[in-house]
Amino acid sequence: MNELKVRVNEYSKDKIPFHGNHFLNGNGYFGVRGTLEEYSKEYMPCINMAGIYDQVEDKWRESVNAPNPLYTYVSVDNKKYALPEAECVSHSQELDIDCGIHKRETEWDTVCGRLKVSSKRFASMANQHAIGMEYQVTTDFNGAVEISTGIDGDVWDINGPHFVKLDVCESDHVISITGTTGEKGITVTTQEIIRIDFDADVSVEKSEKRILRKIKFHAQKGFTYTVKKIALISSSVDDHPCRDDIRTISYDELKSESIKAWEKIWDISKVEIDGDDEAEFALNYSIYHLNCIAPRKLKGKSIPARGLSGQVYKGAVFWDTEMFMIDYYMHTDPAVARTLLQYRIDTIDGARRKAKEYGLNGAYYAWESQEGGFEGCSDYNVVDVFTKRPMRTHFRDKQYHVSAAVVYAFMKYINATGDYGILAEGGLETIIECAGMYRSLLLKKADRDCFEIHDVVGPDEYHERVNNNVYTNRMAKHCFEKAVEYTGYVKEHFAECYTELDKKYDLVKLSKLFQISAEQIYVKEPDENGVIEQFDGYFKLEDTSVDAVRSRLLDDREYWGGAYGVASQTQIIKQADVVAMLSMFKEEYTTDIMRKNWLYYEPRTEHGSSLSACMYSLLSCYTGDADTAYPLFLKSAKADLLLGGKEWAGLVYIGGTHPASEGGAWIVAVKGFAGLEIIDGKPICKPQLPNHWKGMKFKLIVHGKVYCIQIKGNDVKIEEQN
Amino acid sequence: MNELKVRVNEYSKDKIPFHGNHFLNGNGYFGVRGTLEEYSKEYMPCINMAGIYDQVEDKWRESVNAPNPLYTYVSVDNKKYALPEAECVSHSQELDIDCGIHKRETEWDTVCGRLKVSSKRFASMANQHAIGMEYQVTTDFNGAVEISTGIDGDVWDINGPHFVKLDVCESDHVISITGTTGEKGITVTTQEIIRIDFDADVSVEKSEKRILRKIKFHAQKGFTYTVKKIALISSSVDDHPCRDDIRTISYDELKSESIKAWEKIWDISKVEIDGDDEAEFALNYSIYHLNCIAPRKLKGKSIPARGLSGQVYKGAVFWDTEMFMIDYYMHTDPAVARTLLQYRIDTIDGARRKAKEYGLNGAYYAWESQEGGFEGCSDYNVVDVFTKRPMRTHFRDKQYHVSAAVVYAFMKYINATGDYGILAEGGLETIIECAGMYRSLLLKKADRDCFEIHDVVGPDEYHERVNNNVYTNRMAKHCFEKAVEYTGYVKEHFAECYTELDKKYDLVKLSKLFQISAEQIYVKEPDENGVIEQFDGYFKLEDTSVDAVRSRLLDDREYWGGAYGVASQTQIIKQADVVAMLSMFKEEYTTDIMRKNWLYYEPRTEHGSSLSACMYSLLSCYTGDADTAYPLFLKSAKADLLLGGKEWAGLVYIGGTHPASEGGAWIVAVKGFAGLEIIDGKPICKPQLPNHWKGMKFKLIVHGKVYCIQIKGNDVKIEEQN
Repeated sequence: MNELKVRVNEYSKDKIPFHGNHFLNGNGYFGVRGTLEEYSKEYMPCINMAGIYDQVEDKWRESVNAPNPLYTYVSVDNKKYALPEAECVSHSQELDIDCGIHKRETEWDTVCGRLKVSSKRFASMANQHAIGMEYQVTTDFNGAVEISTGIDGDVWDINGPHFVKLDVCESDHVISITGTTGEKGITVTTQEIIRIDFDADVSVEKSEKRILRKIKFHAQKGFTYTVKKIALISSSVDDHPCRDDIRTISYDELKSESIKAWEKIWDISKVEIDGDDEAEFALNYSIYHLNCIAPRKLKGKSIPARGLSGQVYKGAVFWDTEMFMIDYYMHTDPAVARTLLQYRIDTIDGARRKAKEYGLNGAYYAWESQEGGFEGCSDYNVVDVFTKRPMRTHFRDKQYHVSAAVVYAFMKYINATGDYGILAEGGLETIIECAGMYRSLLLKKADRDCFEIHDVVGPDEYHERVNNNVYTNRMAKHCFEKAVEYTGYVKEHFAECYTELDKKYDLVKLSKLFQISAEQIYVKEPDENGVIEQFDGYFKLEDTSVDAVRSRLLDDREYWGGAYGVASQTQIIKQADVVAMLSMFKEEYTTDIMRKNWLYYEPRTEHGSSLSACMYSLLSCYTGDADTAYPLFLKSAKADLLLGGKEWAGLVYIGGTHPASEGGAWIVAVKGFAGLEIIDGKPICKPQLPNHWKGMKFKLIVHGKVYCIQIKGNDVKIEEQN
Repeated sequence: MNELKVRVNEYSKDKIPFHGNHFLNGNGYFGVRGTLEEYSKEYMPCINMAGIYDQVEDKWRESVNAPNPLYTYVSVDNKKYALPEAECVSHSQELDIDCGIHKRETEWDTVCGRLKVSSKRFASMANQHAIGMEYQVTTDFNGAVEISTGIDGDVWDINGPHFVKLDVCESDHVISITGTTGEKGITVTTQEIIRIDFDADVSVEKSEKRILRKIKFHAQKGFTYTVKKIALISSSVDDHPCRDDIRTISYDELKSESIKAWEKIWDISKVEIDGDDEAEFALNYSIYHLNCIAPRKLKGKSIPARGLSGQVYKGAVFWDTEMFMIDYYMHTDPAVARTLLQYRIDTIDGARRKAKEYGLNGAYYAWESQEGGFEGCSDYNVVDVFTKRPMRTHFRDKQYHVSAAVVYAFMKYINATGDYGILAEGGLETIIECAGMYRSLLLKKADRDCFEIHDVVGPDEYHERVNNNVYTNRMAKHCFEKAVEYTGYVKEHFAECYTELDKKYDLVKLSKLFQISAEQIYVKEPDENGVIEQFDGYFKLEDTSVDAVRSRLLDDREYWGGAYGVASQTQIIKQADVVAMLSMFKEEYTTDIMRKNWLYYEPRTEHGSSLSACMYSLLSCYTGDADTAYPLFLKSAKADLLLGGKEWAGLVYIGGTHPASEGGAWIVAVKGFAGLEIIDGKPICKPQLPNHWKGMKFKLIVHGKVYCIQIKGNDVKIEEQN
């Protein structure tokens, strides 16, 4: 396998936001954007905390960024050498995804001569609270140099500032800043300690929002001066409180333990592709990101749609997790998948509240779920570029399909792991409550004999308030089916749980209602051309091209959907919708129907969401067309490798990493190209590799056992590991 | 009674559009805008034809304007004296509403001296094809004068030109222009002949779109030269073809017959109000307009929302006719009311087509009904002021209440006239088809036991796509009820008709379905404060003031409703909605409930429609509060007396006359203040006059009999006339 590194060899101020995502570190507890140490908040550095949220005034609630312990810059002759202000003579930045180490090296010409700064840093994969950094200075002259390093409490926020109070402390060589959020009084503490092995005059400067060590020394030409820094991040709401005394932590041990932890993770998660270095690299880069954000040591936390790359999309959890990410985790670290589902079990009261708010029964999971299942999504999710007014969108109230995605994930998880026990530990109740929600959405026309669901937003968000969206209806049907099936399973295998739930729900009656609902719900069938209409009236909309619709934009940033968007009255859709449904229920459709729908919808899809390409790619695989699938797979795997994703929705910045796309790439590789299916708790592969691929090799966990899978052409070798 | 004249004594170019409406003539077959004779199309003169429509390219279909036979101007010394270009020294314009005669008098200072032009004209109320005009010139000098008069075929059009061919003819003293429409090849012919009793050199000049007589004479100081003109307008689709030879028509007879016809109309329609000259005048001015547009000699034509004042709103028929106008006609000229209903009977196939287009059964009457029930309303009825793009509105597809208004009008008509015969002549089938449409709108939630109607636009158009609009649901219920009741009546009294319809519809079964529908449809009830929520979720919308909402406008012309209008997410409504429902079903609610709803909704109503004030006024009367009703009544009666109505919806011009408002004023006067009810086919009045009114006197036709009603304070005298 090739070296797994991303690297740039020159500096570009324009790419600061992109590189923040591209070079990201993370350990699930927090993400560390791939920004430079000298950056203050205008350049978007951040230590983005998983699952901690705060609201300022009436702005959107969003995740919280910790005080930044990486903040460091160097001065020569009282002049600060920091990018982007001080122009450099050379610069490189690198991320070693094998061990999760970020490196940079920059040279400046000072009045005294050349100055070189290099750093290495990592978010510890072994100790979730810890960050380590080595910061090195070398000069080609003899002279006075000053390194300023400490903690910057003046953090980058989208809707901040979240810290209404900042306690800046220094005690026994440890400096720290504790921020207290305004809404709930949560504290987030960053401690930091440094080790230097050279003579220097070290003092500490405190200001309102910053604490900096001033390390003054006389640099000798050609000699390298190293500052090693350890930082610990913790909060008042940690699942596992930080009990370390930072002064006792060895930098080198911290580093080697983190590297070892990464080695262990890569052992199970790396995917080798023989004959396609580009795809292999992109896929493993995607897997790197999934590894950086997995809530490995957290209880009942899930993954935000933009991972831990910042506050975009409010740091909230979307259906992305259940539809596109969980597959990877359930086959490489089932405990993480379980944690993701636990998050939904734990937050059911939030979902119940939301259902009630809309006059529905059961559980309606948040479109943008924050702690406790709090719905972070606003009724006004897009800003009109022409009037600058918030637009009343229907992401929040009408994307009913999110609850069904949760149930679909339970099904996938149970199939992959055999962990039926989750049903007795909150899983069945969650599924029943989701089914209850769909039951209260069902409508029967006075002159028709089936159940319909009206006024929804499907995965294709450009068409709001449609009736009988085939994706939504089929997913609701699945939810009813699973509620019935799992109720039966629990009755048989977990009697105590059954009795308890039966008292609450009258399960016989309820199962019957769900059974009827599943049988009578209207799911559109293919028309005479084999194509399934996305929703009532979709075929009557203007049939045009994505380019034609794009050409109607008056402003690049205007929203394509909503009531009056350029796509709204056309058949142009944002992302896979019917195609997503077909991918998920492939056993119910013929290859011919799948292909016809792919051919109909793909040219009409803008792929305006990073969730789209992988779904199309997957369906192509299911129709036996791996070569058509391939470019879409590559697009999906490269979501954060290449600059060029959609960074704006209306006037709202939506940049960041794309874990759903990355998870989707993994799904295509393993379920599409390698053709993985779980039959009787065991992996089976029916590969259909792209033409130029010679083979694949990867490990998988299925029903608690580790398997090593090797594919060469059409030959498959599946070995159970000991 | 005071003199019934409207008059202005000075000229204002700005008021050209307003005066066109304010001084309108008409006879039901056409309307003649109150513009000056010398106006060419940029000043909006028009002879607007009832019920003739045409479409140019893909623009909106609209009514057609005939070639204009009034076109006349005068020249002295080769200089044209015509407003507004040639400044005048005096000007007056007058409309005598007693006899429907329009007058103007204008003086100019010419190089030779003073020139006075005066004219009188009328749309004949006796001969629906005819217009008469006397055009007079007087000078205070002796000199050469030229009168140019003829026919202008270059007519004002909003979405024209409609005539793809213009035949300009002269034959035996008669000149004419025949225009042929592009869409259907309908011809509209204007003939004209003049009579002069002075020596002049008369020649005819033809051009492509105009034919003009040049009348040159030597004017003598102080002498008045009169040109009398007769014009006949006819079309290839006339209900009653024009058979007159224009050369044989006597001008004086034409005029005196028209005056006599007006006298007869006023005899039955005038309303006297003792103690309030202002209200009396405004009300009779309103009645004048209703008289000008009544389809008296037409078969199955109805009245456009802007009367015959032009092409605004496409010359189309709205629910306005059934809800606000028909009451006046059924009590003053029942044959006109019958004609209005006949229009709906005759156009049922158009309504069936529209229902089918939306996947519904039965008859869904057009929101903007043109000939044959053609739906003139576009899916894009408003233009966005910011982007200049058409906005996808839901006037066309979701204002289901129009069919119920038709049924409500049948009920009112039958109650007022006793003409049950209409049921056997298409009426019952119309009502059944409307009920069938509502039946196919009914939805039952899986967990609820009543019928709901979702996704509608109620009378308050600012809130689109709402559920369970109380007005719509109650009206649908009324429709079901009447279908059942009238089916029973027809079974008993019109056996042949019953048998025929029974074959087609299986009436026993259908009546049962309608009965169940009526019983089970959900009509919101008053809440704990006695207020009825306009639709599901209305009370959750922002509760603010009309002024606050207005202050949010970025552009005066922007649309308040739709998905993102300033009113859309607030409780601010366009017009009476719950209040309209209460006015129509007053017997079902207590005075207390009516008052509480009035008090809740009135401050939240923009009254952005001229239909609104009269509904609020009527409900005030029903709650016994005539003094609160009074200003709203006056506002309604003065809709075309005062400048200041809403002239724009988005970028679309919506000016013109307001017959629904005028009809509404009549309803308030007669059903509100005079308290008319029809009990057992006889009129009963329970008056509650505004405090300063001493009495009222008016005639009414009820069940074929003419009654004279005199109210003095609380005393009522009702005399049947012989």
